[in-house]
Amino acid sequence: MLCDWGSWDSAFNRLTASVCDDILEIAGGTEAYACVPLQGSGTFAVEAALGTFVPRSGRVLVPSNGAYAERIIRVLQYLGRESVILEHREDEAVSVERIASALAADPAISYVALVHCETGTGVLNPLDEIAKLVAHHERALIVDAMSSFGALPIDVSLASIDVLIAASGKCLEGVPGMGFVVARKASLAAAKGNSHSLALDLYDQWVYLQRTGQWRFTPPTHVVSALRSAINQFLEEGGQAARGSRYRMQCDQLVAGMRRLGFKTLLPDRLQSPIIVTFLSPAHPAFSFAELYRRVREAGFILYPGKLTRVDTFRVGCIGAITVDDIGRAVAAVGDAVAEMKIDLLATS
Amino acid sequence: MLCDWGSWDSAFNRLTASVCDDILEIAGGTEAYACVPLQGSGTFAVEAALGTFVPRSGRVLVPSNGAYAERIIRVLQYLGRESVILEHREDEAVSVERIASALAADPAISYVALVHCETGTGVLNPLDEIAKLVAHHERALIVDAMSSFGALPIDVSLASIDVLIAASGKCLEGVPGMGFVVARKASLAAAKGNSHSLALDLYDQWVYLQRTGQWRFTPPTHVVSALRSAINQFLEEGGQAARGSRYRMQCDQLVAGMRRLGFKTLLPDRLQSPIIVTFLSPAHPAFSFAELYRRVREAGFILYPGKLTRVDTFRVGCIGAITVDDIGRAVAAVGDAVAEMKIDLLATS
Repeated sequence: MLCDWGSWDSAFNRLTASVCDDILEIAGGTEAYACVPLQGSGTFAVEAALGTFVPRSGRVLVPSNGAYAERIIRVLQYLGRESVILEHREDEAVSVERIASALAADPAISYVALVHCETGTGVLNPLDEIAKLVAHHERALIVDAMSSFGALPIDVSLASIDVLIAASGKCLEGVPGMGFVVARKASLAAAKGNSHSLALDLYDQWVYLQRTGQWRFTPPTHVVSALRSAINQFLEEGGQAARGSRYRMQCDQLVAGMRRLGFKTLLPDRLQSPIIVTFLSPAHPAFSFAELYRRVREAGFILYPGKLTRVDTFRVGCIGAITVDDIGRAVAAVGDAVAEMKIDLLATS
Repeated sequence: MLCDWGSWDSAFNRLTASVCDDILEIAGGTEAYACVPLQGSGTFAVEAALGTFVPRSGRVLVPSNGAYAERIIRVLQYLGRESVILEHREDEAVSVERIASALAADPAISYVALVHCETGTGVLNPLDEIAKLVAHHERALIVDAMSSFGALPIDVSLASIDVLIAASGKCLEGVPGMGFVVARKASLAAAKGNSHSLALDLYDQWVYLQRTGQWRFTPPTHVVSALRSAINQFLEEGGQAARGSRYRMQCDQLVAGMRRLGFKTLLPDRLQSPIIVTFLSPAHPAFSFAELYRRVREAGFILYPGKLTRVDTFRVGCIGAITVDDIGRAVAAVGDAVAEMKIDLLATS
């Protein structure tokens, strides 16, 4: 916070370039791909990607099984881009077969927009199978990898992904304030004039960045610098494989501990990503999420409210610069809270 | 950087509320106004304001005398909102008389979009006179106060400004990464459905913030926290009057020092804001801005390239957490650089 970056100076331009180069490499991007950073939250980058890459006459297939796919649909409505929605239950992964049928039935679908890990529930969608399918049908794939990038294996070149979207926070463990896309240069070059927005025009950002080494508009200098440090720590930890493995252990510890307390997960283990876990709120009359939240917060842990409409749930994240021991302490705090609330979940379950 | 804010937690919501309350007060906002923060750079907030407040059928008068008014025009083109452009020279303030004539001649103009301090040159435009005129003609005024807010007196209530736009960096001396608008609640309430963008929809951001105390999408937590500290320092310094007075002294010191070296300002003193000063590049054959930049940078000071198309210039900022002595040292560094470049500006001028 005490370094006064000149946002057009060569030192800052080198910082931007090094961050983008590393993101490109983490994503498996070859020379055919470019990384374009963008100011704002992850949703800004998602909207920017949809507005930049999908032509105004484009039609987008959106397999939906949660809040973040719903957000993509809402963005497409704002942009006036046509969407074809494949609704799924929130506790199932999106269906490869249904996507195959939809693509076969409708040649006017030019893009598929997929959420990799649906953060609203924690469901992991089958990215590799869907990517193969979309490539086979010669359509383009846009992946919202907001909560999976850096933790789960993704290789844009191998999987033939056109556009991958993620952000500085989440599994790269930077601070929030910028997003980025890793996109095929050919798709970027073809995107001129598509965008509905100057600020969110990734084509324009890419062209300017190539020409000057600078962001078009004032970059969040300190967020970029923090992301540089975060990526250094990511590489020191051993990259995606090591990070994903740590998160998996943290997730296993969380699920096992909460189950020992009598809590039930929304999802079967085979659909569960190691990113965020949704627990069903117990039907016990003394249970209140607000009360649980307050007590666990006092012990130093912040729970996440549920995002489901039909079932009462809450969520717990497994990611961040934490350890299995931290997870153990968080579970113990939940255990203490339910005991103080005089709830015996094992007796009532 | 080491505090792990929960972006939906009550502690962070209080931080957001306190920052917005203080910005509203600094802007002279009464109960009829609200402050709405937005992720991204200042340009994101400018585009968001134009897209949110100007109806799709609206017509916007843009008095233009520099790069930032040109950017407003470019945004309006992206948004498909009609603009009426009043072109001015870059070394003159925008003309109140020409704005009056344009408003009188065209009743379909619903908004005037004015850049207060044109950062491209440093020209200060006559905000108070224009605000009075626009109110008299019963049109709405949107002010881009990016580089003036916090340093120059602005009172949205007294001046009857509909929408004021600024950002966390610049004269509030926070780090870049978020913007904000101070807008009439009545204008916000009337703006539902106008926006071309979900991410940039200030109506939606305002409604959600009122209902939940939270930003709609992940906020740049550490930028908000840094802005809290910056506003504390702003208030401790004595608020806008004290900050504006310090910047004025810094500007005077800069201009006097550079003139002693033989540099000439683009602007006459009466048009010069105390924010940023444009200097003409000397016609001396040994002068090169790249070389001056490099030498002055080695001494610890970063110059700003010019933004003019017709004249070769460079700019020096007067703002930030610096002192008159820092300005003195910067001028000395410029003096050393030109001496080393064997340029005697006083001899050639």
